[in-house]
Amino acid sequence: MEFPCSNTHRAITMGISSLPGCLFLSWSLLLISPAWSFLISRQFSSAQSGIHAFQYETFYYTQQVDHFGFFEDLTFKQRYLVSDTHWKNPGGPILFYTGNEGDITLFCNNTGFMWDIAEELGAMLVFAEHRYYGESMPFGDLSFSDPKHLNYLTSEQALADFAVLLRYIKTTISGAQDSPVIALGGSYGGMLAAWFRMKYPDVVVGAIASSAPIWQFEDLVPCNTYYQIVTNDFKNSGPGCSESVRNSWAAINRMAETSDGLQWLSGVFHLCSPLKTKEDVISFKGWLSETWVSLAMVDYPYAANFLEPLPAWPIQVVCKFLKNPNGGDKELLQNIYQAVNVYYNYTSDAECLNTSQTASGSLGDQGWNYQACTEMVMPFCSDGVTDMFEAQTWDFQAYSDECYKQWGVRPRSSWITTVYGGKNITSHSNILFSNGGLDPWSAGGVKESLSESLVAIVIPEGAHHLDLRSNNANDPKSVLGARALEVEYMKKWIKQARRGKI
Amino acid sequence: MEFPCSNTHRAITMGISSLPGCLFLSWSLLLISPAWSFLISRQFSSAQSGIHAFQYETFYYTQQVDHFGFFEDLTFKQRYLVSDTHWKNPGGPILFYTGNEGDITLFCNNTGFMWDIAEELGAMLVFAEHRYYGESMPFGDLSFSDPKHLNYLTSEQALADFAVLLRYIKTTISGAQDSPVIALGGSYGGMLAAWFRMKYPDVVVGAIASSAPIWQFEDLVPCNTYYQIVTNDFKNSGPGCSESVRNSWAAINRMAETSDGLQWLSGVFHLCSPLKTKEDVISFKGWLSETWVSLAMVDYPYAANFLEPLPAWPIQVVCKFLKNPNGGDKELLQNIYQAVNVYYNYTSDAECLNTSQTASGSLGDQGWNYQACTEMVMPFCSDGVTDMFEAQTWDFQAYSDECYKQWGVRPRSSWITTVYGGKNITSHSNILFSNGGLDPWSAGGVKESLSESLVAIVIPEGAHHLDLRSNNANDPKSVLGARALEVEYMKKWIKQARRGKI
Repeated sequence: MEFPCSNTHRAITMGISSLPGCLFLSWSLLLISPAWSFLISRQFSSAQSGIHAFQYETFYYTQQVDHFGFFEDLTFKQRYLVSDTHWKNPGGPILFYTGNEGDITLFCNNTGFMWDIAEELGAMLVFAEHRYYGESMPFGDLSFSDPKHLNYLTSEQALADFAVLLRYIKTTISGAQDSPVIALGGSYGGMLAAWFRMKYPDVVVGAIASSAPIWQFEDLVPCNTYYQIVTNDFKNSGPGCSESVRNSWAAINRMAETSDGLQWLSGVFHLCSPLKTKEDVISFKGWLSETWVSLAMVDYPYAANFLEPLPAWPIQVVCKFLKNPNGGDKELLQNIYQAVNVYYNYTSDAECLNTSQTASGSLGDQGWNYQACTEMVMPFCSDGVTDMFEAQTWDFQAYSDECYKQWGVRPRSSWITTVYGGKNITSHSNILFSNGGLDPWSAGGVKESLSESLVAIVIPEGAHHLDLRSNNANDPKSVLGARALEVEYMKKWIKQARRGKI
Repeated sequence: MEFPCSNTHRAITMGISSLPGCLFLSWSLLLISPAWSFLISRQFSSAQSGIHAFQYETFYYTQQVDHFGFFEDLTFKQRYLVSDTHWKNPGGPILFYTGNEGDITLFCNNTGFMWDIAEELGAMLVFAEHRYYGESMPFGDLSFSDPKHLNYLTSEQALADFAVLLRYIKTTISGAQDSPVIALGGSYGGMLAAWFRMKYPDVVVGAIASSAPIWQFEDLVPCNTYYQIVTNDFKNSGPGCSESVRNSWAAINRMAETSDGLQWLSGVFHLCSPLKTKEDVISFKGWLSETWVSLAMVDYPYAANFLEPLPAWPIQVVCKFLKNPNGGDKELLQNIYQAVNVYYNYTSDAECLNTSQTASGSLGDQGWNYQACTEMVMPFCSDGVTDMFEAQTWDFQAYSDECYKQWGVRPRSSWITTVYGGKNITSHSNILFSNGGLDPWSAGGVKESLSESLVAIVIPEGAHHLDLRSNNANDPKSVLGARALEVEYMKKWIKQARRGKI
């Protein structure tokens, strides 16, 4: 019998903290991965540092727990953040961030683009938290307690929240009644922005969907492109780099054959829990895979604007350690450790690396894992030939069984393409899809324009939703161009709306 | 304290059997009104008579009970009817009837238009039953047992059923994969057809929404237009006619002041249960109101094609008895009885008239009443001045309280306009709205074109979805023109779809 993780897919979380992971043995790892907590801690440091002193007010709106049924007549408080500093009252536009799988302050503080353009557009900024994330818990501490309480965690309910909230905002804020609203979002938030425009075109006049893999479902795109993109990022960042990673798996497997080898590995990688079993090794490899994928997502052209910054073009820095793919197992794996350490040595207090850390309050990952086990069934696979990862096929049945074990629910793999139209979306309008050429999530993105008003922008030097980040002196021209085009389209949609032509 | 029915609205059922009624005391009456059972019995007689020998096959598809949640992983059998006699395989279009609040065979047999045009379009006909109606019961006999089992009776779930069913049909019927699908429906079915195109434009290339009052919600249209249209139908069908009805209410009230008067009324109207209480009188007046409204809906230009046909232009026949509005209470009410009898004397075995008959199996009305108490909150009012009905204001709170008493749920009056866009629907496309000038439901319909592809047709001589009925020698030109235009638009949408331009 093979180990489940070796013959199946990975479930991949998204967003700023996006991390791939083997669904099975590294499941718990996903709940709060080092990178996730790392990014959060950096984010909060950033907010504290005052580099981006984003000023907003926090509000709570009473939402129906169930928009689509009338038996459960309960409500909860949805958090949303508003900044009207630059808002042109009356009638100035509203830029509405369709919150995704995390605390809304995280997205608020990482979507500098909206803050950068608010004045130019005379726009109010609204950031709406996604139900079951951050403070917007439908059942408080019981929200994740069982499938019954989790039943209302779906994209359709989230979109309904947004529509109802906007109606409330437009009818209660004086001067906002005729304000055109534009949805913006990155990653899953970008999917929501696009779907929001598709399903509620009367509510939002257009959508900026950044790094939104709306086609990473069923067989709409090949399941291995995602890992191929990661591989290309490494291949293009230094000679021998992707080969080193590809060769590392067999080296680990060989090393793991003896207890001496396991001990050696645990020591070299400074693991908090030494590797002992085959499952530990699988988990360890999953953690390494996640690291490479995360690096591909945050491969930004500048040192991250944090208290303890990541270097500019971090994969290039990583690849400096991975020039010799054929130097023998021990040398290769020591180099791999050095490379991984580029990513992890910024955590302030990590004396050892924990590859199977359990959750300690970051509900974001829990929520996404539930969503991946219900609606968000994204097939991934790798072959170890066209990509640098271990070969893994996509096995829906195993995935479904594991979901049932974990959450008591079964995923419906064809629902998302049924409800949101799959690739047949040309009857919609006013959506701008942006994708970064370096971003693995672009695999499931819309990269060619589908009509005059369903526009695709590809940012060759862009990682995961780079365009939504604040302007930076080191931004490549392509992202500046993308942002300019996005503003242009937003202005166009606003004008159309004012002329009643939407 | 006034009686609830006199100071509030009416809840109005729709469809071929559409009947208005006072929500409160005549609630039970709505469950199976004489007219409803009457129409059904005539319908089945018609089917038996073989005048329209519509040939179809009956199928059942296994649907999720809850498309929008994953906790309740149950399924049920949705019934649908298919006729492929004229279908051009491969690729011929599919005309898809979005079933409304009743047994699907009723709509199948009353939508002759689809049968009439199938050959010309080389089309497959599909009639899909709406969940909680006919045989498509999510929980069998328990479906209506309590609010928990009724929780999945919503328009969104019904639309999702249709989308999932069509996906199944297109992937399993050889040659149907690229078949363009057009949604058709009348009344609530027309609303569903329009909403289906709005929410699932990738599934249906266009929609024919006949007599679909998609704007009979919140304050989108005045609440009294509905009754004004009924009144005009009577006013234009004979001198003194609407005045007679208007004057009848006070006459009844005066007569009801004494027990002799009540006895006289009960005798003249051949009531099975003599009027005794004030509530009885209110119920009696509700039943009369329903009769006038029903007549307005089925005021067709030809004798209904049934075993026991209604006369052509039935309101004109009714009005022959209502020429003298000021001839004294007794004469007036005797005339009212004669008029009502035009409608009811076709029931074969009714030796007396039952104004408060209870349900005996027609779940259609139960389902609609639940829907009216949840999503389908349609405000109605009358003033007795611009219309011929007793004055009734619209009182949402009373309505909500009554719904809670009846079903254990409360209506959400602003949900439908939020989820389906209210009047702001111009970003959608390829919907043809047809309305009859005689049909009270046109009050909430789209009667002016909103764009090149959101087209309104008004059929001045048309009652409730006359255009969806079979061609008839006595059809007015306006409905022939409407049907021709509908076919023209359908051909256009099919062509667009084949060119990949939808």
